Amino acid sequence: MKPEKIPGTKYVRKPGSHILLADRPGGPFGNISLFCGSASHDLAEEIGEYLKVRVGKYSRVVFSNENIFIRLNESVRGQDVYLVQTMGTPLHDNIMEMLIMVDTLKRDSAARINVVIPYLSYSRSDKKDQPRVGIAARLLANMIEVAGTDRYITIDLHAGQIQGFYNIPGDVLTAFHLISDYVNDLHIPDLVVVSADLGFAKKGRNWAERLGAPHAIIEKRRVDNKERPEALSIIGDVEGKNVLLVDDEVLTAGSAVNAVEAIRSYGARDVYFAFTHPLMTDIGYERLAALGLKEIICTNTLPVPAEKQLPNMTVLSVAPLLAEVILRSHAGRSVGELFDE
Amino acid sequence: MKPEKIPGTKYVRKPGSHILLADRPGGPFGNISLFCGSASHDLAEEIGEYLKVRVGKYSRVVFSNENIFIRLNESVRGQDVYLVQTMGTPLHDNIMEMLIMVDTLKRDSAARINVVIPYLSYSRSDKKDQPRVGIAARLLANMIEVAGTDRYITIDLHAGQIQGFYNIPGDVLTAFHLISDYVNDLHIPDLVVVSADLGFAKKGRNWAERLGAPHAIIEKRRVDNKERPEALSIIGDVEGKNVLLVDDEVLTAGSAVNAVEAIRSYGARDVYFAFTHPLMTDIGYERLAALGLKEIICTNTLPVPAEKQLPNMTVLSVAPLLAEVILRSHAGRSVGELFDE
Amino acid sequence: MKPEKIPGTKYVRKPGSHILLADRPGGPFGNISLFCGSASHDLAEEIGEYLKVRVGKYSRVVFSNENIFIRLNESVRGQDVYLVQTMGTPLHDNIMEMLIMVDTLKRDSAARINVVIPYLSYSRSDKKDQPRVGIAARLLANMIEVAGTDRYITIDLHAGQIQGFYNIPGDVLTAFHLISDYVNDLHIPDLVVVSADLGFAKKGRNWAERLGAPHAIIEKRRVDNKERPEALSIIGDVEGKNVLLVDDEVLTAGSAVNAVEAIRSYGARDVYFAFTHPLMTDIGYERLAALGLKEIICTNTLPVPAEKQLPNMTVLSVAPLLAEVILRSHAGRSVGELFDE
Amino acid sequence: MKPEKIPGTKYVRKPGSHILLADRPGGPFGNISLFCGSASHDLAEEIGEYLKVRVGKYSRVVFSNENIFIRLNESVRGQDVYLVQTMGTPLHDNIMEMLIMVDTLKRDSAARINVVIPYLSYSRSDKKDQPRVGIAARLLANMIEVAGTDRYITIDLHAGQIQGFYNIPGDVLTAFHLISDYVNDLHIPDLVVVSADLGFAKKGRNWAERLGAPHAIIEKRRVDNKERPEALSIIGDVEGKNVLLVDDEVLTAGSAVNAVEAIRSYGARDVYFAFTHPLMTDIGYERLAALGLKEIICTNTLPVPAEKQLPNMTVLSVAPLLAEVILRSHAGRSVGELFDE
Amino acid sequence: MKPEKIPGTKYVRKPGSHILLADRPGGPFGNISLFCGSASHDLAEEIGEYLKVRVGKYSRVVFSNENIFIRLNESVRGQDVYLVQTMGTPLHDNIMEMLIMVDTLKRDSAARINVVIPYLSYSRSDKKDQPRVGIAARLLANMIEVAGTDRYITIDLHAGQIQGFYNIPGDVLTAFHLISDYVNDLHIPDLVVVSADLGFAKKGRNWAERLGAPHAIIEKRRVDNKERPEALSIIGDVEGKNVLLVDDEVLTAGSAVNAVEAIRSYGARDVYFAFTHPLMTDIGYERLAALGLKEIICTNTLPVPAEKQLPNMTVLSVAPLLAEVILRSHAGRSVGELFDE
Amino acid sequence: MKPEKIPGTKYVRKPGSHILLADRPGGPFGNISLFCGSASHDLAEEIGEYLKVRVGKYSRVVFSNENIFIRLNESVRGQDVYLVQTMGTPLHDNIMEMLIMVDTLKRDSAARINVVIPYLSYSRSDKKDQPRVGIAARLLANMIEVAGTDRYITIDLHAGQIQGFYNIPGDVLTAFHLISDYVNDLHIPDLVVVSADLGFAKKGRNWAERLGAPHAIIEKRRVDNKERPEALSIIGDVEGKNVLLVDDEVLTAGSAVNAVEAIRSYGARDVYFAFTHPLMTDIGYERLAALGLKEIICTNTLPVPAEKQLPNMTVLSVAPLLAEVILRSHAGRSVGELFDE
Repeated sequence: MKPEKIPGTKYVRKPGSHILLADRPGGPFGNISLFCGSASHDLAEEIGEYLKVRVGKYSRVVFSNENIFIRLNESVRGQDVYLVQTMGTPLHDNIMEMLIMVDTLKRDSAARINVVIPYLSYSRSDKKDQPRVGIAARLLANMIEVAGTDRYITIDLHAGQIQGFYNIPGDVLTAFHLISDYVNDLHIPDLVVVSADLGFAKKGRNWAERLGAPHAIIEKRRVDNKERPEALSIIGDVEGKNVLLVDDEVLTAGSAVNAVEAIRSYGARDVYFAFTHPLMTDIGYERLAALGLKEIICTNTLPVPAEKQLPNMTVLSVAPLLAEVILRSHAGRSVGELFDE
Repeated sequence: MKPEKIPGTKYVRKPGSHILLADRPGGPFGNISLFCGSASHDLAEEIGEYLKVRVGKYSRVVFSNENIFIRLNESVRGQDVYLVQTMGTPLHDNIMEMLIMVDTLKRDSAARINVVIPYLSYSRSDKKDQPRVGIAARLLANMIEVAGTDRYITIDLHAGQIQGFYNIPGDVLTAFHLISDYVNDLHIPDLVVVSADLGFAKKGRNWAERLGAPHAIIEKRRVDNKERPEALSIIGDVEGKNVLLVDDEVLTAGSAVNAVEAIRSYGARDVYFAFTHPLMTDIGYERLAALGLKEIICTNTLPVPAEKQLPNMTVLSVAPLLAEVILRSHAGRSVGELFDE
Repeated sequence: MKPEKIPGTKYVRKPGSHILLADRPGGPFGNISLFCGSASHDLAEEIGEYLKVRVGKYSRVVFSNENIFIRLNESVRGQDVYLVQTMGTPLHDNIMEMLIMVDTLKRDSAARINVVIPYLSYSRSDKKDQPRVGIAARLLANMIEVAGTDRYITIDLHAGQIQGFYNIPGDVLTAFHLISDYVNDLHIPDLVVVSADLGFAKKGRNWAERLGAPHAIIEKRRVDNKERPEALSIIGDVEGKNVLLVDDEVLTAGSAVNAVEAIRSYGARDVYFAFTHPLMTDIGYERLAALGLKEIICTNTLPVPAEKQLPNMTVLSVAPLLAEVILRSHAGRSVGELFDE
Repeated sequence: MKPEKIPGTKYVRKPGSHILLADRPGGPFGNISLFCGSASHDLAEEIGEYLKVRVGKYSRVVFSNENIFIRLNESVRGQDVYLVQTMGTPLHDNIMEMLIMVDTLKRDSAARINVVIPYLSYSRSDKKDQPRVGIAARLLANMIEVAGTDRYITIDLHAGQIQGFYNIPGDVLTAFHLISDYVNDLHIPDLVVVSADLGFAKKGRNWAERLGAPHAIIEKRRVDNKERPEALSIIGDVEGKNVLLVDDEVLTAGSAVNAVEAIRSYGARDVYFAFTHPLMTDIGYERLAALGLKEIICTNTLPVPAEKQLPNMTVLSVAPLLAEVILRSHAGRSVGELFDE
Repeated sequence: MKPEKIPGTKYVRKPGSHILLADRPGGPFGNISLFCGSASHDLAEEIGEYLKVRVGKYSRVVFSNENIFIRLNESVRGQDVYLVQTMGTPLHDNIMEMLIMVDTLKRDSAARINVVIPYLSYSRSDKKDQPRVGIAARLLANMIEVAGTDRYITIDLHAGQIQGFYNIPGDVLTAFHLISDYVNDLHIPDLVVVSADLGFAKKGRNWAERLGAPHAIIEKRRVDNKERPEALSIIGDVEGKNVLLVDDEVLTAGSAVNAVEAIRSYGARDVYFAFTHPLMTDIGYERLAALGLKEIICTNTLPVPAEKQLPNMTVLSVAPLLAEVILRSHAGRSVGELFDE
Repeated sequence: MKPEKIPGTKYVRKPGSHILLADRPGGPFGNISLFCGSASHDLAEEIGEYLKVRVGKYSRVVFSNENIFIRLNESVRGQDVYLVQTMGTPLHDNIMEMLIMVDTLKRDSAARINVVIPYLSYSRSDKKDQPRVGIAARLLANMIEVAGTDRYITIDLHAGQIQGFYNIPGDVLTAFHLISDYVNDLHIPDLVVVSADLGFAKKGRNWAERLGAPHAIIEKRRVDNKERPEALSIIGDVEGKNVLLVDDEVLTAGSAVNAVEAIRSYGARDVYFAFTHPLMTDIGYERLAALGLKEIICTNTLPVPAEKQLPNMTVLSVAPLLAEVILRSHAGRSVGELFDE
């Protein structure tokens, strides 16, 4: 057996250094148990294969009054349960389903309940930046905690501070290593990294640092013009360069269209687009398809249906990353070690 | 001015005994403020008219990632806010919208936040009657409390015990007086009250008592028969009688169809059907329409769209009842007094 | 060794399939430890024998100011403690004693505290069915939780919803299998099951289903008659039948006297009486003795003193049921499995 | 009108400086409302007379399963409620009754719930002074808080630290001014103050300071003698003096008998005995009667039945003190002002 | 009287539209009461003058074991208290002092406790951006809440998300209007706004928008060079321009020195420096003094001692802003109104 | 190997009865892990040596804004962590550092967090003994709990009741056995134990009992004398005796100076001084040095710098005591057993 690099990490596993579940039978949190909500079946199966753990069975009925009913088909008493559920569409049904499953696991006396939420929604409602609005991301944190969750695992929060909305411990992972390793291997010449907006500038700088490339930033500004309320400009230099546009999530791709348009108007050559969360709606797929990008790179924190996947789109799987973290969480081993930290 | 009976109560208001909001300016909970979620616009308007209070304005946006965004257009600082939102379709969006509004009201420093939920959902998930299920109604109570709600007002819970799921005080009202007053005025001869199932038998007895009629009960039993897993029988006597079938809510009307079929097979004459919550789906309306009932009586705890309303259907408004209770809640006056209690 | 049916369950243990405590030394919740309060000495001893675990020793003093003082004689650090205490007479002393013991176990650093409450009191104060009353059953839940209890085990709650009053997980068991197995073996001919009141009708239907018998229900109604404020009638047919009257608890047996009188006045033959909780006062025993019942069947969730036990009374022990559940709770094994669920 | 000294305080009310309830109609906590539990009827009536507020009416039933049922006969919505209940015999019934009343007041939407507990029990279980015991006084605090109490008022805690067991604010008053004013007026010559035990020494010093007298202290020590496990000695000088023995509460008077015996054996003359809480049992009254004390002075924090009151016993009423504090608490006025602080 | 612009807001008060405290005597939160901790005496006095409210008196002793002892000299029962305490040096003493004062206000039965923290510390420990670190800003939020604080008011948080660390409502204000109004009146020609780092870029954009100027951003990057581990570059164009460098706080001014050096090396002309929080240490003052800046503009959220104030330094007072917000908070009036929102 | 007495306990370990950590690998709380804050490095090292466990490594930075930053250098996932931090000077930095470390341990998913606080500060702010003060010791308990602490271990609380301020379990140990064993071995003739004040009288009695000596008590009394506001007297007899003065902590030694002066003025011979916590300031050391005491005996719950240690001072180590308790806490073994209880 030769050393093995774990995708999504900086960790190279030396032969014979596998953490085995068998190493910790009946550990501090009982045996491991893996469940998934209806938004993450495929990802959970992939994780289960990596862990060599079967995904738990349960019955799920939605009554005509829309009430969700969950009944586990196997007991979780005294077990260390990992429940995988992302927050894609239909959003509120997925959230409620997850909370009901947590309540169910709790009332069945699970020893520890970990929710694995590859994409955590409501992350843009994370501050009270105008009067008389709420902070839905904190409300969501409260809901997840009050349901009985003990820990959570998620990927690439819109703002790192959201972790502070939770009093329970959590592992906030990043797909940065996964995607940047991939992009690095493309060896794109004359590259400049462009941050999709000012709020992403710090993360964009990390991209530029990792790829040894210069950095430019797209700035949006309110203008007194009814037709087009926002003006877009690029701070920094992209002319004659190949551009890697970086962002955290794509939804309707409206911003991406504007960004690429601006990048091209400043004289750039090829445009690559990398982001973590493919939260795309139909219009999002259509717009991305029409943009003539050299390559689109994202992950499967949200499901990308086979029929939607574009020819120039690369979807990297976060399953090995999540599986390794689950393994280490269960076995009481360092997660930071995966990232040389 | 002459004495006035308040609909939905036993209370007869003597001339000059109006509780006026003006009586309590800046009371213990500040001034009154009325808001509504998107599921209860009409009902809230009706309540506002009764109270002579304008329904508060707010902006509501649903982003393409389904995130709900709420911004109040008027400040609620130091006010006693009543937020009306029923739990009809789309259920989880309505719940989340209500919670986000509560969070928003809290963070805008409302003095007291009262939610008015004419129909409270998930009430049938109120016990762990089989292994490995949760109690979603308690989860919902936790969610409502953790969001920052101070009090709640609701109507005809499926089980009275659900009030015990809440640590915060609440007014659980009933539409019994409203509907039974109406039915009593019909003076139906040879009446027998039929409870729609065994769980409703105690409330059915109250109906029978109120109308001075005998009582029969529909019993469902599991049988070893694949075709028809449940057998229906009627305990008690309905032959040759006019029947008032009573229940708390109607959804797909599947049970109602079976019940009316059974009632007729036991030789009853006309069948009336009274219930509180018209939670009806399209198929529910169709089935009720096809049943040939003498009259259907319910309330507007959930909206009954004008185009759906059946010719033989009477919808009584709970707005006066809710408005009186809000008034008394705000003014620190007894609510029990409305019911001679 | 041959297959063994565990009393009070549907479970038949195959040879060699015993769950042994030795299987899980130092499991997620440490070693098992069994304690009891002063209301359940005999039952706890019986459970201890089944589990082959000694009941823990402690000193208990009641000072002349009625303060209860508890001192454990053995350490419970890091252990999975099961504290058995029913809620019979003197009620509030028993409750306070249990809470003080929980506080003591918590402050001695028990790893997990499970209270085993065969009969949970205040269960009829479970809803606010009139203005200006409280919900004592929820208050009791809060008290049990705030003392530091981690889990609870109880039998046949008056209303299943009371489980929702608790945020901590619990096992709410039933003596239905235990008693109905016994009654089934009596092979009573021409049997009709009679529910003692409308609130018990659903459970009565389960009895009827289990025994393949028809079902009738006793209805109480308020009447305008000072002498006798309630009128009793039977919905359904009992004439010429042997009757099994079913209820959840018996106290003064006043209702039982009225029920049996009514049953006989409708022309029934022999009357059997089955219920779970013998909460009987002296007058209760006297009345039952005078009723001429064919047989009385109940359990020992509350102690039945040898000198009070009537000749026609069969008391079935819940100890095996509780012991099996404790065993499975400790070992992290399914409890539902005991009931084919 | 002339200046008026309020009994139990240092406060002398100047003419015209009465705090009137009428001064604060609908204050921050609504109108004032006074209730009492069954252990403090007389005291509550006395307080009500002082405040010119009627004691609220309620129904109280104790079912034969010992469950206490409370129904208020008048609404407390939006009111500032003061519930008077001391913790005498039967102790646990009184505690539970109080908690149920608090729950009832909360669920009837009282604006603020203040419990007035003249004597707070379990105060000697206030530390873990040996392994494997609990701290019942903290448990009791948790129970009172979790029931929904907002504030508490009590008198002469056994240890001042018990106030720190509560997270809610409270007024811990003292009967020291009330009793020491009375004793001072006796002008006892050659007085020495004797603290009943070492734990009371600091308070005894305050007595000595107030009366300008020397101080002696009774010390108990464990000795290796089976017959009499404790030896009593007096630290300090009492020979030929008149003694004022001071303590916080008297129960069986066993300690008092020993103390007085020791005091006399050291050659003292007359013995007076002052304490706050007459928690006396029958044997306590008998022993006190037999002791030949010059005078016994205490308060009515616990009821002293007329037929029990000894000829040499003076019972001072805490009602004016409690009433003034309630008044100031309600009106948002300083309580410390009553004590020149 | 003519219209009056309130400094730090967009609000122009029309004649006669003053909110008077007298308008709301005994409002929902009682009378207003103003206190300050030892870190904000001057600011609190300034606020008190604006509000025409005297700052409350208290005794403060620091024992030789460093324990802080606080005793209020006036009662706050039933009052709406505003406690002003910034988080400058000595930091942890100031925090603990504030928490002890909150505890003291709570136990003296204040009706509502608002802390006014012009500068909230630990705001850079707001995310877990590396393994095995905590989130001290959330810990601080928990500490403030658990002490009994009801609301908080602060200015220019390092990250808006920190507001989500609090479950209690708060007013997070900004000095942006105050400072940018001042800068705007300077009419600096050929201006470019430079954000001090990528994390400030969004706020820098707002500055640029407000002043109608272009925007450039300073980027720091890790480089493989032991001498100088970070390389600084400017994204955007500053050559030949006057620069307004903007940031939120200044501490040792090390970053400022590097920034100004870089700005000048890119060929800029005059440099102005604006920031909210003068958290400056001695070295900070020295470095700023040596930088040759055209003008330094900041506020007094932290005290700027007269002897330290530099000749080219303008310190704008946040007292009117805080006072107006306190006024509106107390009177239950909109705060957003101050900002045309 | 021969029986071994564990210092600070009554426990004599029989050969072969060592509790080994190896006995419980992966017990209910994972593996053991030992950390320390910056106030207890030496003590933690000593404990680590006893336990044969290495003290965990971490980085600690204090920024120029005084913010403390902690980063663990090793993972604590799933471990049973013991964090040693005493509360000496600088007090509030030490407290905050400890809380930040607890938050860090929690967010790194430690299985259980135990804080070991040899000296717990703010213990004299444990009651509200005058109006308008707080109870800082309870505030501190709340802060420790809200940070995420699961258990605590401490030594000789100023008042035992402080343990009741905590809802989490704790081991409150005493140095009484450690110090009194030492003093006993001195065989001082004609000994009298003198309690340093009335509040210490009960503990002083235990000293007297243990040493078979008489007991006297120092009494302080307020007098109307501006020069010297307190008069000191000794209750009991010390003339011609050797005195052991006992107290819990020494700070500035001001009280000690007065006490020794009084003791000598009453004609005593040699004076020994024993106390647990050497919280001494510089002036404290100077005063003790000048007092001419026969011997000073204390412990190292707070560090005693080598250069400060007086020639007549004996510092006994609490490390073995703490280490044994940590061992037993981790292994789930009785702690009371160490004290024959």
